[in-house]
Amino acid sequence: MRAWLQGLIAEGPFPPRRAVFFRSALVVCIVVSTAIAILDTSEGIWGQHEELARDFSALLLLVLTADYGLRLLTAGFSPQEGETALKARLRYTLSLYGIFDFMAVVPFLVGEAFDLPRDGATIFGILRFLKLARYSPALETLGVVVLNELRPLLASLFIMLLMAIASSTLLYFAERSVNPGFKSVSDAMWWSIVTLSTLGYGDVVPTTVLGKLLGSVVAVLGLCMFALPASILASGFSEEMRRQNFVSTWHLVAKVPFFARLQANQIAEIASLLKLSRAIKGEVLMREGDTGECMYFIVSGQVEVKGKGGTFVLKNGDFFGEIALIERCPRTATVKAISRCQLLVLDARDFHKFVAHDHALLEVIWETARSRM
Amino acid sequence: MRAWLQGLIAEGPFPPRRAVFFRSALVVCIVVSTAIAILDTSEGIWGQHEELARDFSALLLLVLTADYGLRLLTAGFSPQEGETALKARLRYTLSLYGIFDFMAVVPFLVGEAFDLPRDGATIFGILRFLKLARYSPALETLGVVVLNELRPLLASLFIMLLMAIASSTLLYFAERSVNPGFKSVSDAMWWSIVTLSTLGYGDVVPTTVLGKLLGSVVAVLGLCMFALPASILASGFSEEMRRQNFVSTWHLVAKVPFFARLQANQIAEIASLLKLSRAIKGEVLMREGDTGECMYFIVSGQVEVKGKGGTFVLKNGDFFGEIALIERCPRTATVKAISRCQLLVLDARDFHKFVAHDHALLEVIWETARSRM
Amino acid sequence: MRAWLQGLIAEGPFPPRRAVFFRSALVVCIVVSTAIAILDTSEGIWGQHEELARDFSALLLLVLTADYGLRLLTAGFSPQEGETALKARLRYTLSLYGIFDFMAVVPFLVGEAFDLPRDGATIFGILRFLKLARYSPALETLGVVVLNELRPLLASLFIMLLMAIASSTLLYFAERSVNPGFKSVSDAMWWSIVTLSTLGYGDVVPTTVLGKLLGSVVAVLGLCMFALPASILASGFSEEMRRQNFVSTWHLVAKVPFFARLQANQIAEIASLLKLSRAIKGEVLMREGDTGECMYFIVSGQVEVKGKGGTFVLKNGDFFGEIALIERCPRTATVKAISRCQLLVLDARDFHKFVAHDHALLEVIWETARSRM
Amino acid sequence: MRAWLQGLIAEGPFPPRRAVFFRSALVVCIVVSTAIAILDTSEGIWGQHEELARDFSALLLLVLTADYGLRLLTAGFSPQEGETALKARLRYTLSLYGIFDFMAVVPFLVGEAFDLPRDGATIFGILRFLKLARYSPALETLGVVVLNELRPLLASLFIMLLMAIASSTLLYFAERSVNPGFKSVSDAMWWSIVTLSTLGYGDVVPTTVLGKLLGSVVAVLGLCMFALPASILASGFSEEMRRQNFVSTWHLVAKVPFFARLQANQIAEIASLLKLSRAIKGEVLMREGDTGECMYFIVSGQVEVKGKGGTFVLKNGDFFGEIALIERCPRTATVKAISRCQLLVLDARDFHKFVAHDHALLEVIWETARSRM
Repeated sequence: MRAWLQGLIAEGPFPPRRAVFFRSALVVCIVVSTAIAILDTSEGIWGQHEELARDFSALLLLVLTADYGLRLLTAGFSPQEGETALKARLRYTLSLYGIFDFMAVVPFLVGEAFDLPRDGATIFGILRFLKLARYSPALETLGVVVLNELRPLLASLFIMLLMAIASSTLLYFAERSVNPGFKSVSDAMWWSIVTLSTLGYGDVVPTTVLGKLLGSVVAVLGLCMFALPASILASGFSEEMRRQNFVSTWHLVAKVPFFARLQANQIAEIASLLKLSRAIKGEVLMREGDTGECMYFIVSGQVEVKGKGGTFVLKNGDFFGEIALIERCPRTATVKAISRCQLLVLDARDFHKFVAHDHALLEVIWETARSRM
Repeated sequence: MRAWLQGLIAEGPFPPRRAVFFRSALVVCIVVSTAIAILDTSEGIWGQHEELARDFSALLLLVLTADYGLRLLTAGFSPQEGETALKARLRYTLSLYGIFDFMAVVPFLVGEAFDLPRDGATIFGILRFLKLARYSPALETLGVVVLNELRPLLASLFIMLLMAIASSTLLYFAERSVNPGFKSVSDAMWWSIVTLSTLGYGDVVPTTVLGKLLGSVVAVLGLCMFALPASILASGFSEEMRRQNFVSTWHLVAKVPFFARLQANQIAEIASLLKLSRAIKGEVLMREGDTGECMYFIVSGQVEVKGKGGTFVLKNGDFFGEIALIERCPRTATVKAISRCQLLVLDARDFHKFVAHDHALLEVIWETARSRM
Repeated sequence: MRAWLQGLIAEGPFPPRRAVFFRSALVVCIVVSTAIAILDTSEGIWGQHEELARDFSALLLLVLTADYGLRLLTAGFSPQEGETALKARLRYTLSLYGIFDFMAVVPFLVGEAFDLPRDGATIFGILRFLKLARYSPALETLGVVVLNELRPLLASLFIMLLMAIASSTLLYFAERSVNPGFKSVSDAMWWSIVTLSTLGYGDVVPTTVLGKLLGSVVAVLGLCMFALPASILASGFSEEMRRQNFVSTWHLVAKVPFFARLQANQIAEIASLLKLSRAIKGEVLMREGDTGECMYFIVSGQVEVKGKGGTFVLKNGDFFGEIALIERCPRTATVKAISRCQLLVLDARDFHKFVAHDHALLEVIWETARSRM
Repeated sequence: MRAWLQGLIAEGPFPPRRAVFFRSALVVCIVVSTAIAILDTSEGIWGQHEELARDFSALLLLVLTADYGLRLLTAGFSPQEGETALKARLRYTLSLYGIFDFMAVVPFLVGEAFDLPRDGATIFGILRFLKLARYSPALETLGVVVLNELRPLLASLFIMLLMAIASSTLLYFAERSVNPGFKSVSDAMWWSIVTLSTLGYGDVVPTTVLGKLLGSVVAVLGLCMFALPASILASGFSEEMRRQNFVSTWHLVAKVPFFARLQANQIAEIASLLKLSRAIKGEVLMREGDTGECMYFIVSGQVEVKGKGGTFVLKNGDFFGEIALIERCPRTATVKAISRCQLLVLDARDFHKFVAHDHALLEVIWETARSRM
């Protein structure tokens, strides 16, 4: 029973089937529940079905409450070393996701009892959306990137502030006598932000010749300067994604015996070339006659190889797809996953740059390839 | 006859002349036909020439129908191993391009018979544009990129959604009492999207001081966050273009005997440095006296070299342009393509980094260069 | 006393505590003072509290004046070789930051005496913001980048001007008869700038079919061309940040004895891999059981290592965190800074690429690691 | 006389002084003349000074005509091998810049005689701006980039067209009954372009719920897709700038004897690390006591070195600034250009990566450094 409940909220690459169902149901509940909270702010949107909407909303909240209870319960099942079950549950309650889960059900628990004002219901209803953060590593990644790039980000923020202040002061002096949108520097600041971010609402627009001239310069400068933080974040984000990919690949490489013969620096090199890939049962990984652009290493799972040389099964630690890369010919066999597989994929380009360099390695691959042809 | 028809729709780097004409005619027909379908939605645009527009439109559809028939017919001419002509045709019919071709002529075939409503004619008329996808690899490339970068794209989509929800909730509370554009969170969401994507229509604009302050923050954050998916797609796209270039170059390198002496890892390296280029008959590839910035390897076709050392012809497997790179002097000869050529181009920078490294290689090039000087 | 005053405005990585307090107070004064100057342009914003605002503003100016006096005074304490104290003070007065400091207090000193017009007070009040530039290297960095990339920036400016002129001429001829926003080429120029910078205020919009067609082309071209300067600046900025990081790391590497055995080119290589990091007293740098993704070198300061092998202290020149990288296991100890530390951080990926290459180096790290396990 | 005239329009890195003056005068004339042509389209802008403006304009045209005559004349002075002076002049006339020069003075020559309509005067007046293209390599570079990246640019253009057509069709069906801006697909197309390019004029905005939903999706997709061509152009542009820098550096390296001992591949490597720099007479290149971040190689010109070891002069082929890089100490001397200099600059980072690798090279630098210390 304990194991079954824990399995229900299990995560990781290959959760049990019930976890997949439960997760999907939960995501739907969260999304629908947030959508209802958003729509609920539109006066009279439900028409005569208001009662129905409330009931449905309550049902969704019941599911979320059940999820919270479940997580609270199971948190006590696997305490860390030297921790009581109670302390483990407290740790979950105070963790970020624990707080998100708590806030998602507060209005249901408290609001019903103490008659929470409508605005509170709206806010907590919309906050439910944060529960989804558990299923997306994006927010964590973004947080890491912002911390890593804090100095350049603050630097560009300072430049942006300086530009906003300078341009609104200039435009204030150019336009204040004729344009109500530039009555004061703080009014002009709204125009500056809207212009520098290339929004251009058009609610405040310079009308004098001098104002338009200055506005043109601000528009062009803004375009250049406001690209700084965007580009810092974008490149930091893609760098962080690459780093995360390296770390996860690097730990998997150890599970493939073939790489055991590599030296530490070679392992680090190949780990940054490999890409992690997953296959579900029955997925066809390559088809006889296709052009071969990569080879595969099996981390876990089994595949079936069907070629002219007969049919055989490969499992964790084996590799396949190397013949097309060595011989530069089309695929000589069709490969199908016969269980869920974790695979490491090596591109043609990287294969040659890396493997062909090391004759001992190439020899091992050649031997395997020859035995299969 | 069969060969002639197949040649009509042939693809690849060097199709027969009739295929070039047919393809051009078809592209014009598709573009004009789509344009007519678009313009047709403007009430009374044809004036008294409506009859004429209909007739012309019918003519274009006739061409497209002919094209569909032709492709259906020829699909049966070259069935795959162990396939009947009928099965090959069925395979074409169910392929993506087969469906595009089919949809392009449906209104003509069905609409005339069963009196399709006008909206249907518009939709199918505009869908004809998809037939062009056959001639542009862009959509396929984009599809590959979106699949490759699915995880970071979804991650940034989640961040965008979170920001849209958070900012519309904030602005709703700040503006709801005075601004009809923020009557509900869902109304505010329209403002959020328009602002976060830096569109800034200006149909909904915050008017309170708090609203403007929050709006400024949202504008700046939006600028940064919405650059994420754009930059992920853009870098993925250029990476994919480079990879496709590598694969096509890598297969052509084998056709140049000069590269046969290279080891597999060297071939992989040079293949990522070479650029594929095509020349039509009569094209001048280099002119005596110009600065030399690259050398050429001929994959197929013939060129005529006219220099002080006389005139001679080079053909597939030969290379030229190496003298200017080795001697750092202007071109010593003029080279003209005397048939359609496929060439591999090596930049000066890459030439020195790669070739000069390997003395044996350099020696071969030197010998050839000396024999020509 | 002299030392105490100098310490008050000291800069660098680890200033005395009083400098941190003074700096924070000053930053608050500058920000508040600028904000008051900006708000002051809004008619009647203070209501009946105008007197209070003036008094508070005067108080802030007093602090800024005190800061200016302090800097002027201490500038004379540490004159350069062969310089009198007076000359050293003059040098400060004429330096960029000296001028900023001077301008920040001019209206207070002069305005009170000679009754400066209100506009002057506004301008100088807002200019006070420039004093903050001292605390942000961003403006200097930006200046360096603009100088480095001057040629491509001017090149793209020329292209932008050409496009603005061409598009406004075209739209002028297309729209002049019906659209008051395109009465002359110079009027059309405002539309061009607003469109090319993707601002799109909407105050001037083409209305004829030809104008909309041309406008669409201009919009798309503008999007492409106006990205040039933004991308030049953004990549130049991140390149410059990386260069600055290299220079500061490169000078710190010399303080870590471990790197003494490296050759000059290896030092240059590792310096571009290391990242500079600081820790305050009591900060936990790694926790037992976490995944290890980097190792640390101590430039200055002391850390306490608490693991299964007991508790010991490491100080400048030592390194830690190497076990998790070599063994690919979780952290085996918890490390806490027991004083302010400057650290150089080496990523797992870089560790393997660099260190594992050099067997002698790896041996040294191994020995240390073994003695700790 | 001939030489004097030729010198007047000479180009290249170090033109004679009269060429600098003539060029500056010409640039001013072109800019002013274009500005007058633009302002001239504003009704009654000159007021009663119209006569004056005409006369001034005529004067500027006279200068441009003189420039055209001068170039036509001098074009005949240095014909290519086996060319008559007349043929050389004809070649200039038909060259791109010849045509620009010709068009700049056509209205003056022809308009006065045949009474050119005012619109013609405007167009040709504004076209004068193209004469500036001679002084900016940007347009040529851009042309090269567009040609190089034609395939990906066309690919992204196709995607953009597809998105514009699809989104305008969808919005047409969603909005046509209530929104006059979506009366037909071609009307909706204007909205699509304005939205996809993130312009957002706001003249046409979806008003129905479905229209807003679709519009949001289009806005986000547009943001992503329209970044493709911008990023392709931007990266192509910076790549081309780097290539041009390599080519010009590569040819200068040969003039520095120090590099003669390098092998071809090393020369190619160092050429991509060096940066070209120019110094005018009297410019201080480094100052004693500064941090040293680069070393210099003199291609042409002379510099004066003033240090503790005395004062000496270095000229083409020599290098300086190496001590600070080897010893990681501040500059030990002040260096001033005593004539116009062309210099190649090597960064600290690149110095160590490249030079320290090759012991023979380092020895040569060391010897020189020791002899100076």
